[in-house]
Amino acid sequence: MTFDSLPDTLRWENNRFFIIDQTVLPENFIEIELQTRDEIYAAIRHLKVRGAPAIGIAGAYGLCVCAQAHIDKPYSAFVSEVQQDAHYLSSARPTAVNLCWAIKRMIRKIHSSRSKDTAKVYESMVNEASKIHKEDLALCEAIGRHGKNLITKGCGILTHCNAGSLAASKLGTATAPMYMAAAEGVSFRVYTDETRPLCQGSRLTAWELQRAGLDVTLICDDMAASTMSKGLINLVIVGTDRVAANGDVANKIGTLGVAIMAKFYGIPFYVACPSTTFDPATETGKDIVIEQREASEVCHFGDKRTAPENIKVLNPAFDITPKELVTGIITEKGIIMPPYDKNLKQLGVK
Amino acid sequence: MTFDSLPDTLRWENNRFFIIDQTVLPENFIEIELQTRDEIYAAIRHLKVRGAPAIGIAGAYGLCVCAQAHIDKPYSAFVSEVQQDAHYLSSARPTAVNLCWAIKRMIRKIHSSRSKDTAKVYESMVNEASKIHKEDLALCEAIGRHGKNLITKGCGILTHCNAGSLAASKLGTATAPMYMAAAEGVSFRVYTDETRPLCQGSRLTAWELQRAGLDVTLICDDMAASTMSKGLINLVIVGTDRVAANGDVANKIGTLGVAIMAKFYGIPFYVACPSTTFDPATETGKDIVIEQREASEVCHFGDKRTAPENIKVLNPAFDITPKELVTGIITEKGIIMPPYDKNLKQLGVK
Repeated sequence: MTFDSLPDTLRWENNRFFIIDQTVLPENFIEIELQTRDEIYAAIRHLKVRGAPAIGIAGAYGLCVCAQAHIDKPYSAFVSEVQQDAHYLSSARPTAVNLCWAIKRMIRKIHSSRSKDTAKVYESMVNEASKIHKEDLALCEAIGRHGKNLITKGCGILTHCNAGSLAASKLGTATAPMYMAAAEGVSFRVYTDETRPLCQGSRLTAWELQRAGLDVTLICDDMAASTMSKGLINLVIVGTDRVAANGDVANKIGTLGVAIMAKFYGIPFYVACPSTTFDPATETGKDIVIEQREASEVCHFGDKRTAPENIKVLNPAFDITPKELVTGIITEKGIIMPPYDKNLKQLGVK
Repeated sequence: MTFDSLPDTLRWENNRFFIIDQTVLPENFIEIELQTRDEIYAAIRHLKVRGAPAIGIAGAYGLCVCAQAHIDKPYSAFVSEVQQDAHYLSSARPTAVNLCWAIKRMIRKIHSSRSKDTAKVYESMVNEASKIHKEDLALCEAIGRHGKNLITKGCGILTHCNAGSLAASKLGTATAPMYMAAAEGVSFRVYTDETRPLCQGSRLTAWELQRAGLDVTLICDDMAASTMSKGLINLVIVGTDRVAANGDVANKIGTLGVAIMAKFYGIPFYVACPSTTFDPATETGKDIVIEQREASEVCHFGDKRTAPENIKVLNPAFDITPKELVTGIITEKGIIMPPYDKNLKQLGVK
């Protein structure tokens, strides 16, 4: 396989911002342009663009689009308006640390800009967003380099949700070791959980791995234990939306169950992420705000109602996997092993 | 609540056989009549009627419907035709022991009939099927009586798939302790897994528990660990399609994962079933044939495609929970505790 064939989840061209609309995959593979603050918020909120690294980049480019609307205002009004937009965009999804991180970095860039010419400030914003995007590309590649040796010929890998090209840049995070091993000619099998309620596994991961020519098999979330019990899984790799200072990991709902099952069967459970996903300000997983989403996601499948009217539901978008269940964290700086509190600090993550 | 309000999954009236079509719940609550061998086979195969005890009863009544077509033939042709029908119906679903058990019992009844008058033999078949149905009613009630004390005020119970009224007679199996505790005024919460791919949890369990006035909350299968981690679950009760001689349990795909998670959180994991579900001829879970179902169930949700074309899938309908993860088996004869090999034998299950 070649990496060129991997989809471009986000694209900035001639001051216009495009994303692949992930809500209509796999049936439709289309790019849409985001032109207003509300369109950007809605695209993040409703998962047209999703995945921790990707929504960070989307927040950065998105803020550039927002700034376009204020470029003719006086400098102080421009900054004030962009800050309001930044606050608004940051609230689209609360759990992923990358969105806030990227937007904060954009705001710092504005304040560090020497010019008070709004057009020049805007230009520096675009450069910064583009830099965040390029950095993510490099981060994903580095994650792939460090993680690929975990994948041996003939092994079976389970992943949950989508931490692939569609969630980041090109190689993705959890998928980076897979794409890199495949590019080096290693043959292996990947199993992807469906990942209810929004089916990122069946709609996105199955789609992108199949498209890249990997050997991928789709299972429902409740088939993971059975698949492990048959000896088909030798390795789990998932992404993450936030890693607490002690090593607890927030990721898509269902990750915790996969980690518990992997522990039961003695299967190594790895988390892949850029070090920007570490949040030293969050001491443990207990301190992570878990986004609760609309009940309708659980009661429906697309437009089809699958539960009785007025049924109570829980719909947490994420769960917390305690550090004890995490074999290692694959980052651009290498694979971090326990004890995480000590080893995360040593890597210079502050 | 009163038990009268619980749905009649199967009904025999004036030599006609009716079932609730479970494939169209919860949107449509309709009864259909099964009039031919092929209709009966398809109803079992395609889960219009489902649940281990219910498909046993359906097999018995179904064989009576089949026999109606042969009643004018000579005795030996009648018996031969009914035996062929029995063989065909038994093959509709391979994992549940109850279907074969009930059909074999019907065949034994035919052979033990003193008369060679086909009308009289048919009459004895109807009586036997009706007896199987009535026995199941009593078994479910007894399971409820033995299991209800596990349910304490304010506790949270997780169940997977549907082992309720819709899967058996009136009180169901896994639900019998719940209905009986509720009838005695005990208040508690039930969480039901969606149970992909066919969503028996969201479509059926949520529907019947809500209809009976119980406090029920729907979660996706990949939310079970998160729900347990928050301390919301104090007890798991599921049904089963077959219990091996050593205590290994076959049940709907996903049960194994729930059992592993329950073990991790120290939550008691109970299986509820009539003793007809024990299969002493099956030594361990490894000997149980697991039904593999169509890939389309995993790639679709109703009519909506949710995965790319030509994606590989696994779709085992059941998994095997090893006896070590089973806290106890709630039967009509009491709650059987480990060691199961010894205690199942002592209960006179042969």
